[in-house]
Amino acid sequence: MLAWAVAQRADAPLDLTDLRDELRRFVAEREWGRFHDPKNLAMLLASEAGELVALLRWVDNGDADAFAAAEPQRGKIAAEVADVGLALLLLADRLGLDLAGALRDKLEVNRRNYPVELSRGSSERPPR
Amino acid sequence: MLAWAVAQRADAPLDLTDLRDELRRFVAEREWGRFHDPKNLAMLLASEAGELVALLRWVDNGDADAFAAAEPQRGKIAAEVADVGLALLLLADRLGLDLAGALRDKLEVNRRNYPVELSRGSSERPPR
Amino acid sequence: MLAWAVAQRADAPLDLTDLRDELRRFVAEREWGRFHDPKNLAMLLASEAGELVALLRWVDNGDADAFAAAEPQRGKIAAEVADVGLALLLLADRLGLDLAGALRDKLEVNRRNYPVELSRGSSERPPR
Amino acid sequence: MLAWAVAQRADAPLDLTDLRDELRRFVAEREWGRFHDPKNLAMLLASEAGELVALLRWVDNGDADAFAAAEPQRGKIAAEVADVGLALLLLADRLGLDLAGALRDKLEVNRRNYPVELSRGSSERPPR
Repeated sequence: MLAWAVAQRADAPLDLTDLRDELRRFVAEREWGRFHDPKNLAMLLASEAGELVALLRWVDNGDADAFAAAEPQRGKIAAEVADVGLALLLLADRLGLDLAGALRDKLEVNRRNYPVELSRGSSERPPR
Repeated sequence: MLAWAVAQRADAPLDLTDLRDELRRFVAEREWGRFHDPKNLAMLLASEAGELVALLRWVDNGDADAFAAAEPQRGKIAAEVADVGLALLLLADRLGLDLAGALRDKLEVNRRNYPVELSRGSSERPPR
Repeated sequence: MLAWAVAQRADAPLDLTDLRDELRRFVAEREWGRFHDPKNLAMLLASEAGELVALLRWVDNGDADAFAAAEPQRGKIAAEVADVGLALLLLADRLGLDLAGALRDKLEVNRRNYPVELSRGSSERPPR
Repeated sequence: MLAWAVAQRADAPLDLTDLRDELRRFVAEREWGRFHDPKNLAMLLASEAGELVALLRWVDNGDADAFAAAEPQRGKIAAEVADVGLALLLLADRLGLDLAGALRDKLEVNRRNYPVELSRGSSERPPR
């Protein structure tokens, strides 16, 4: 049952257009734009990534999936993932970046840098 | 003209549903699932956040927007933002997380923790 | 007076040999060696670095020295600097690394990579 | 032989007093003090920590010690550890911090927060 529930949630739609608008209003209402230059937002992102790493630093790789699926860790990890995501949306928006386009472009770069036949089952970047 | 172009790009749709599917295929074809437990993906995310921070570590706050808008920095920053975003999508997917829902939930928590009247123009978290 | 006190403290001896021994005992008494493989300690270090970054993410560069010199920030920052330092000592020790030697080697590499005449007043790495 | 050599190196003296002085000269000669406010140095430290994490993100916990002991990884990891260490020394010095004292103070705090009898073999912080 858990696996099914998880799979369902993972296939939820992932349209963040409205959320980006809400986030803009959230920042504007609090007059936080003055703090949100790209340098500060990069630091926000790094600090939130650090909190995420903190939650998983002592668990072994082999136990990480089960650990992250069990409460209370799941809720904490979800909250940190969300903090990273909000920081990323704030930064992309401040930069005036088409985030979806940037992600597609980078995935395409990765496809070229890691050809299937040279990369299968290896975490190393193939020589060029 | 630049400001206009940037604003346009920032308002591009932000639907990542298809990208998530492509990313799954990208990983599956390379049989990288074995490396992508939540612990390792949290490390991927932190290392990509570190590369983003590296690009902005020497610029002053007052120059950060202009610095990030000019090439070649803009392209490099966009690529690092995208690397962080791809790592975040991989992690959320591995966790079976409804990422859009998690982001909405966290924004709601932030709305409560930072009431407009107590937070306007301040980067401090208001006392509870 | 403050500047004098600060300068004095900055010139305190920096011999960490005994501290490293104490740290080994601290870990051994708690039987934490099983958690302290290099991967986990790298995550510890990154999460502590994230906490340090969090303390300085909203302050402007021009205010950062004064901000960091004033309480309660100074104490908080000192504690996070120390957390990073302890993580670094734990990691170097686990790796069996001569940390002082590694630091000297890296400073020498930096001297070569950033020749004085090409690097003065510039944060860019000179072309080779 | 390797284990012996490693143990020897790990017991090398760890007096960084002279290195701190050399590092001051290195920075002063290049007139880099203008870039080295505490905010920027915290970012330097976080980005170097990110590079360290990158080297260990795909290795399993159970293989991490052997992985880190073998070349070419050992040299790369040592260089990143050193980069983190140099950033830490630069930051502590800019803050006018007695780094050895701060480390001793923090270890003492940790001794109180993690009493031996409550912490043995557990990575969790005991309830207070």
